Amino acid sequence: MSVTPETADKVKAILNPGRMTADGIPYPDYAAAVSALDQGADWFDFWTELGDEYAGLGEEAAAAGNDVSAGGWLWQASLSWHYAQFMWFHDAERREAGQRRKVELYKQAAPYFQPGGAERIEVPIDDTVIPGYLRLPANAGDGPVPCALLIGGLESTKEESYLFENLCLARGLATFAFDGPGQGEMFFDVGLVGDFERYSSAVVDALVERPEVDSGRIGVLGRSLGAYYAVRAAALDDRLKACVAWGACFEIASELDTMPPHTRAGFEYVTRIADSGEARAHLESALDLSDVASQLKCPVYVEHGAHDRIFSMRQVELVREHLGGGDLELVIEEDGDHCCHNMGAIVRPRMADWIANKLGATP
Amino acid sequence: MSVTPETADKVKAILNPGRMTADGIPYPDYAAAVSALDQGADWFDFWTELGDEYAGLGEEAAAAGNDVSAGGWLWQASLSWHYAQFMWFHDAERREAGQRRKVELYKQAAPYFQPGGAERIEVPIDDTVIPGYLRLPANAGDGPVPCALLIGGLESTKEESYLFENLCLARGLATFAFDGPGQGEMFFDVGLVGDFERYSSAVVDALVERPEVDSGRIGVLGRSLGAYYAVRAAALDDRLKACVAWGACFEIASELDTMPPHTRAGFEYVTRIADSGEARAHLESALDLSDVASQLKCPVYVEHGAHDRIFSMRQVELVREHLGGGDLELVIEEDGDHCCHNMGAIVRPRMADWIANKLGATP
Repeated sequence: MSVTPETADKVKAILNPGRMTADGIPYPDYAAAVSALDQGADWFDFWTELGDEYAGLGEEAAAAGNDVSAGGWLWQASLSWHYAQFMWFHDAERREAGQRRKVELYKQAAPYFQPGGAERIEVPIDDTVIPGYLRLPANAGDGPVPCALLIGGLESTKEESYLFENLCLARGLATFAFDGPGQGEMFFDVGLVGDFERYSSAVVDALVERPEVDSGRIGVLGRSLGAYYAVRAAALDDRLKACVAWGACFEIASELDTMPPHTRAGFEYVTRIADSGEARAHLESALDLSDVASQLKCPVYVEHGAHDRIFSMRQVELVREHLGGGDLELVIEEDGDHCCHNMGAIVRPRMADWIANKLGATP
Repeated sequence: MSVTPETADKVKAILNPGRMTADGIPYPDYAAAVSALDQGADWFDFWTELGDEYAGLGEEAAAAGNDVSAGGWLWQASLSWHYAQFMWFHDAERREAGQRRKVELYKQAAPYFQPGGAERIEVPIDDTVIPGYLRLPANAGDGPVPCALLIGGLESTKEESYLFENLCLARGLATFAFDGPGQGEMFFDVGLVGDFERYSSAVVDALVERPEVDSGRIGVLGRSLGAYYAVRAAALDDRLKACVAWGACFEIASELDTMPPHTRAGFEYVTRIADSGEARAHLESALDLSDVASQLKCPVYVEHGAHDRIFSMRQVELVREHLGGGDLELVIEEDGDHCCHNMGAIVRPRMADWIANKLGATP
C-alpha cells in the first residue's frame, strides 16, 4: 500500500516532531522525511531505507570494534524502523514487518549501550513472555539500586524509551522498559487487556529477584496510554512505591469520539478485535480506573499538556477527583501538547528527577 | 535594534537547523523561534528570554540538589544565549551581551556535568588568558587518558561543543575545548590572528602538565574555521598526534567573494579591524596553510560536505594537493552541507571514533 501525496497530508497530520526528535530522531531525518512525503514518497519506505543505512553503519562499527557507535547507529536504525510503522494501523502486514525489524535491530544494539549494555529479559506469563530490557546505572556495582518500570503507550514501545532511560541512569536509577499486552512485540501474542496489572506485577516478581535491584525501591512511569497502565499497576501492587503518569488518562470512553480518527483506529487495532463496535466496547470496559483508584497509596506525579488532542482536560479533572486523596502532584502545562512533547527538554528531566528522588536514587 | 519581519528572512537564511539541533537546541525551541520570527518577534529577544527560563529551572534544580538537571538546564540556557547572538555581527553591543551571559551560564553549568564536571582552565598567554574546559572520561581514574583539543569556528565556541565532547568522553577520550583569538570570550581581548598555533601550543603546554592527561596522546579537532586552525596547530606542534578537520578550509582568499554576505561580515568582524578592506587583507594573509602544510606529519581526517556554501570544493582540492602526502583520510559527503550538519548523526560519531582510535582511547 503506497502513500500518495493525498494521504501524505494525513501522515503529516498525525506526526509530532517534538516527540520524534525528543525520542532520538535527528531533526534533519524528520525534515527529509516530510520533504520526501511532499514529493510523493512513501513514508514507510523512506524510514525503512534510512533505518537500513544506519543498520549498515552500526554493523560496520561493530565489526571495527567501535562499540559506542555500533550501539548508537543500531539504536538509530531501530528507531527509524519504529517511526516507519508507528501509526501504520491501516496496513497490518507492513506494521508487523516494521515491528519485527525494529525489535531485532534493538536486540543487536542493546549489548553496546553504556553503561554495561541493556539486558533483554523475557518474563514468563501464561503461554507467552513479557519482553523488556533492564538497564543499570554506572553506580550499580556499589549495591542494589532503585528501578523504574517504564511503560509505553498506544504505539510507543520499549525501544522508544532509550533516551528517557539515559535520563534515569544519569540519576542513579535503573530502568526496565517492557511491552505489555497490545504493545510492540507483545501485541502479536496478546491484545489490549483490562488487567494490565497482572503483567506489570509479573515484571515486579522478576525484578525483585534481581540482586542489582533494591526490591523496596521500585517505581513505575507510563507514557500516554501507558500513564493509565502505570496508575493501574501502582494501585494494585503495593511493591510499587512511586508512580508517574506522563499524560493524564483515567478512562477512555469519553475520549474516543473526540480524539483524532487515526488514533481511535489505533486503539481499536491494538485490541485485536476485528469488529469496530466490539473493539470499542472492550476499550471502554478495559480502560477505566474507577474501580481501582481508591487503592492507590503511593505518591503520584501527573504531567499533562493543556493542548493534548488525545486525552482532554476531562482526564485531569478525573485524576484530581479520584486520585487527589493521597500524595498527588499534578502539573498542567498550559502550552503543552500530548505528553508535553513540545517541551520535552523541560518535562522529561523533571519527571526523571521526581521519580529518582522518590525512590532515593543517587547519581 | 529590532528585527522586523523584513529582516526575519535574512535571519532565517543564515540558520542551519541541523547544526542547531545537533548542538543541543531542542527542535521545538527552534521551530518556535522561527514561528516567532514570522510573527515579527526579535530573534535575540526570543532566545535570551527562553535562555533565562532555562536558567531559572537550572538554578531551582541546583537549589533542590537535582544536580543532573541543574547541569542540563544551565547548559541549555547557555546554548539559548549562544544562538541568540551567534551571527549577530551587525550589533556589537548585543553580541557582547550575549557572549558574556552565555559564558557565565556555562560556568554555572560546568560543575554539574557528568562525569565529574568540567574544569575551567585559563591558560596564560601574553597579557591575557586562553579560556577552556577540561572534561575527563569516566575511566580517567585508571590512569592518564588521551585528550582532544576542540576548536570552534567563526562563531561556534567552546560552549557549543558539549554534546560532541560527550561523544568523545563515551569513547574514553578527554576533551579540552577552548576559545582562541577572535573566538567567543577571547575575541574581546584578541581578534583573529595569523599565528593561531602559538595559542594552541600554549594549550598543549598546559595539558602536558596535567597528570590525568597522557602527554603522548594529544590530538586536535577543529570545526568550520576551526578546521583550518586544527591543521595549522598540528603542522606546527609535533606533540599533536592526530588531527580532524571538520570541514575543509585551506585558505580564505578564494572564498570571501562567494560565501554568504553575512558570513563574510562575520569574518571581517572577528578581526576587530574596522575598515573592511583592511580586515579582508588581514584575513587573506592570516588564513592560508600554504606555508605550513608540508610540515604536517600526523594523520589527518577531513570531513567535507559537497553542498558547503561557505567553504567550496576548491578547499578540498587544496587539501588533497597539499596535505595528501601523508596519512590523509578525506571523506566527501555528496549530500552534506557546511560541516555536514545535516547528517550529524553520521559524521559526528565517525569523527569521534577516528580520533579516539588514533589516540588509543578505550571506553
